[in-house]
Amino acid sequence: MAEGLKVLDAVLGDDVSVETTEYDLGARRWHATGETLPDEVLEELKGHDAILLGAIGDPSVPSGVLERGLLLKLRFAFDHHVNLRPSKLFPGVESPLAGKPEIDFVVVREGTEGPYVGNGGSLRTGTPHEVATEVSLNTAFGIERVVRDAYARAQARPRRKLTLVHKNNVLVHAGHLWKNIFDKVGEEFPEVTTDYLHVDAATIFFVTQPERFDVIVTDNLFGDILTDLAAAVTGGIGLAASGNINPGGQFPSMFEPVHGSAPDIAGTGKADPTATVLSVAMLLRHLGFDAEAARVEAAVSADLAERADTQSTRTTSQTGDALAARVSG
Amino acid sequence: MAEGLKVLDAVLGDDVSVETTEYDLGARRWHATGETLPDEVLEELKGHDAILLGAIGDPSVPSGVLERGLLLKLRFAFDHHVNLRPSKLFPGVESPLAGKPEIDFVVVREGTEGPYVGNGGSLRTGTPHEVATEVSLNTAFGIERVVRDAYARAQARPRRKLTLVHKNNVLVHAGHLWKNIFDKVGEEFPEVTTDYLHVDAATIFFVTQPERFDVIVTDNLFGDILTDLAAAVTGGIGLAASGNINPGGQFPSMFEPVHGSAPDIAGTGKADPTATVLSVAMLLRHLGFDAEAARVEAAVSADLAERADTQSTRTTSQTGDALAARVSG
Ligand SMILES: CC(C)[C@H](C(=O)O)[C@@H](O)C(=O)O
Ligand SMILES: CC(C)[C@H](C(=O)O)[C@@H](O)C(=O)O
Repeated sequence: MAEGLKVLDAVLGDDVSVETTEYDLGARRWHATGETLPDEVLEELKGHDAILLGAIGDPSVPSGVLERGLLLKLRFAFDHHVNLRPSKLFPGVESPLAGKPEIDFVVVREGTEGPYVGNGGSLRTGTPHEVATEVSLNTAFGIERVVRDAYARAQARPRRKLTLVHKNNVLVHAGHLWKNIFDKVGEEFPEVTTDYLHVDAATIFFVTQPERFDVIVTDNLFGDILTDLAAAVTGGIGLAASGNINPGGQFPSMFEPVHGSAPDIAGTGKADPTATVLSVAMLLRHLGFDAEAARVEAAVSADLAERADTQSTRTTSQTGDALAARVSG
Repeated sequence: MAEGLKVLDAVLGDDVSVETTEYDLGARRWHATGETLPDEVLEELKGHDAILLGAIGDPSVPSGVLERGLLLKLRFAFDHHVNLRPSKLFPGVESPLAGKPEIDFVVVREGTEGPYVGNGGSLRTGTPHEVATEVSLNTAFGIERVVRDAYARAQARPRRKLTLVHKNNVLVHAGHLWKNIFDKVGEEFPEVTTDYLHVDAATIFFVTQPERFDVIVTDNLFGDILTDLAAAVTGGIGLAASGNINPGGQFPSMFEPVHGSAPDIAGTGKADPTATVLSVAMLLRHLGFDAEAARVEAAVSADLAERADTQSTRTTSQTGDALAARVSG
């Protein structure tokens, strides 16, 4: 996080000053106070232009507490329905895939519906007769707005291709709703080529033919799975950025690395801050600082290419320094 | 399918005769009669020792009709709760992954619960106010039996490692039920090393470190996604076999390639029958013909190694002939 803010300051220079408020949320606070995201904090956050979220999670906190109580609470409270996750294999970066494929696509993951709504329960909990449910909720309203956003993004890119990923041969109700809306909204974008893939088949193409993708639109859970796989094939989760966007601007959008908090290396200076720095670039673009965003991305790209040559093993803050130097240079 | 039966006959030789009944199900029948799986056929199938299922599906049939009405109907009616999917990178087979990793694991996918139960619906269908739901149903009974089966399989393998894959930080009710049962049943198998991964993280390891997996147990939907990815990294869906097992033997188990029907190449003689032949090996093992199963697998392994040398482009039936010759030789 420190490196992300360092690069943000450096790229904005003296012309623009950034006012930041730091909130100590996450595992430490939960242990100390039992709180995940207090209402006052949520209220205060509304007064900000954007949120930069450090990776959360710690094995000492029961699974789900911070995820649901902090991260997902923010996504839902601030109606972050466009969860934007670009995937690009930068020159010089090793992919686990043979043959250095060209990868440059973006996943538009729905962020406020599907199996993430928290609508489930358990009956006869803890007994041999327990039954647990999880309900995926999908609305025409929620799907249409994210599908339209994805079409607009595809339209603005050179290849103009949009792929819908779902599982409409099994999840027929949600799947057909997605597919019908995808087809209907597509009529407004005659220049965009469309495609549909079941989620299982999509994972195959991610490793055998990732160059076939341009923009992908998909539901919350499939998007979660696909974007981790996308990060893996583009050189790892240490490089993957994301934006939780509230397109209307009614609430602050939130930018975060796709990776977790890596508690095993916390404080060792080994973490790669690149995903956070690329998230800062997304934040800048979202707020209209397009030139600055491009400069951050160019700095990352140059830095990654150079790393490949020098085999450097820098610390977290050395990488941050190097990127800050590039964007201010 | 013809090649699978050819190899089955060849490996059993004159000692054992196989009585087969052929059922013409799938797209053609649906177009002709509107039927997917008539009750009489389901009843008759019960009298068989096992089912070998050809890949189903055709773009001329609406998505979901054959999947739900035929394939899933069989899995549910015959209580195929252990959906067994081995993943092995055979010598000589190209993987899309760089560096030829060692891959040899098996996914035990739950086959009769989760989001596959068909419990969903749609309100205000076709209007801008449509709401569609999909309910994932999970029972302690259903999870425990598949988890125990997976432990037993892990126990019988040299590495004795079992990984549970779920998403218990978001799907907390179903996820915690899976995790609690996984931990509890694990006490009966002290020699098995265990691990837990979220499904998104699991996809990363499938491409960066597939050698870490031995046996994986997971829910129906995650298993669907992971096994397609596993097939991709082990050389493609043309080689992936599966068994829909009813361990108690109350109903016939069913064996099928993981791939679809590839209607674009139907009848051209280009389809690789290997996945069907490996499914025949699983069928043989299930019925107690262990030596014969091993012979079929050895034949496939030798054939794949030789293919790499000769760059051969055989037809479907030539590959079937080659495998039949090997197992009878
Ligand atoms: C931490 C978890 C709740 C989250 C998700 O599932 O969305 C993460 O995996 C992600 O992709 O941002
Ligand atoms: C065809 C489809 C219903 C099926 C599934 O989702 O289980 C297939 O993808 C599979 O993996 O066997």
